[in-house]
Amino acid sequence: MNDAREVVVLRYGHRPGRDDRMTTHVGLTARALGADRVIFPDNAGQSAETVRDITGRFGGPFAVELRDDQKAIVREFDGVVVHLTMYGERVQDVETAVREAVGLDEPEAPEEASPPRDLLVVVGGEKVPWALYERADFNVGVTNQPHSEVAGLAVFLDRLFDGAELGREWADADRRVVPEATGKTVIDAGTETDSAGDDEAGDDRPGNDRASERRD
Amino acid sequence: MNDAREVVVLRYGHRPGRDDRMTTHVGLTARALGADRVIFPDNAGQSAETVRDITGRFGGPFAVELRDDQKAIVREFDGVVVHLTMYGERVQDVETAVREAVGLDEPEAPEEASPPRDLLVVVGGEKVPWALYERADFNVGVTNQPHSEVAGLAVFLDRLFDGAELGREWADADRRVVPEATGKTVIDAGTETDSAGDDEAGDDRPGNDRASERRD
Repeated sequence: MNDAREVVVLRYGHRPGRDDRMTTHVGLTARALGADRVIFPDNAGQSAETVRDITGRFGGPFAVELRDDQKAIVREFDGVVVHLTMYGERVQDVETAVREAVGLDEPEAPEEASPPRDLLVVVGGEKVPWALYERADFNVGVTNQPHSEVAGLAVFLDRLFDGAELGREWADADRRVVPEATGKTVIDAGTETDSAGDDEAGDDRPGNDRASERRD
Repeated sequence: MNDAREVVVLRYGHRPGRDDRMTTHVGLTARALGADRVIFPDNAGQSAETVRDITGRFGGPFAVELRDDQKAIVREFDGVVVHLTMYGERVQDVETAVREAVGLDEPEAPEEASPPRDLLVVVGGEKVPWALYERADFNVGVTNQPHSEVAGLAVFLDRLFDGAELGREWADADRRVVPEATGKTVIDAGTETDSAGDDEAGDDRPGNDRASERRD
């Protein structure tokens, strides 16, 4: 989302079939909430395809990669590594330090601003190796309760960007949802004409609800 | 989380098998991020059991209900209804209005504070009826992009409570995770003694990673 630094989400581990939907949601959440790229294990091709399809239709830039060398990605990452885990430090205690480490803070004296650094956010799937805890610059818990890696990623990104990700604009989108109090309006993003008769928002009110564009 | 009002999350629609994990994550996210209760469709018994199990071990209060009358729950809810949907108004534009509607705002003049009202947060699963859009006091989009209902719920709750949910304390917990920079420590919440030899955090470093207490 930012020109000067890249925020990358790494989904660590994936069990085909069982994890398809969670991995897809990790990727879509990374895209929607301001990350620049997601890396999936190379056995998560179906999830990658879904996230690429959504990016093609709703815009980018957002990159999806399949890689088989997750340990090496973490070990060799040239930047700050955050590992989201329920055993980590409380997000409310460390978010300022994370922002400072990647140069997202806004210090009172501009000359004290840190230079931009890339950020790798690791989201565990299957069991993660202990080496990840040790390599991470920050092990971060979005609560120290068991819940959902998708929820943890979402809250972390929203706090990292301090809400700025919600105002992001999308390039090369085919379509765009128009936010409204009561309605489901999708317009053609190329011509910005209302396309409430096309396959996206067609005969859907009432009854044929297409509120979930999610794929899984 | 608040004595004076109840925040209830309703998972609308559930396809057994296919949705089990997402529904479970909706419930665990609701619990971890400050809701008081979750209502699942009555065919989501497995998810209910998992969330109750986590509540039994990690604490509450948090209630899980199975109900077959979702339309009626929404229609007859005595309080404010928020429906999370990618077609809704932007969360950053309406979050203050939602907080004011339920009395969570902190006006400059205390006498202007709204009385507490209960809040129902509806999270779509399967297709939701158009009547839900009409009944909702707020249709809210956490971005107008397709991503994840779990991510949307998480960001919405974090903003609703303005982060206060992260400091919540838990009653009647068997165990408690101690947040730390590098480690996985779980203590017995009854006696507050380190139990890093029990089944929760036992022989897990390195190698036997139990960072994911998530159930699915």
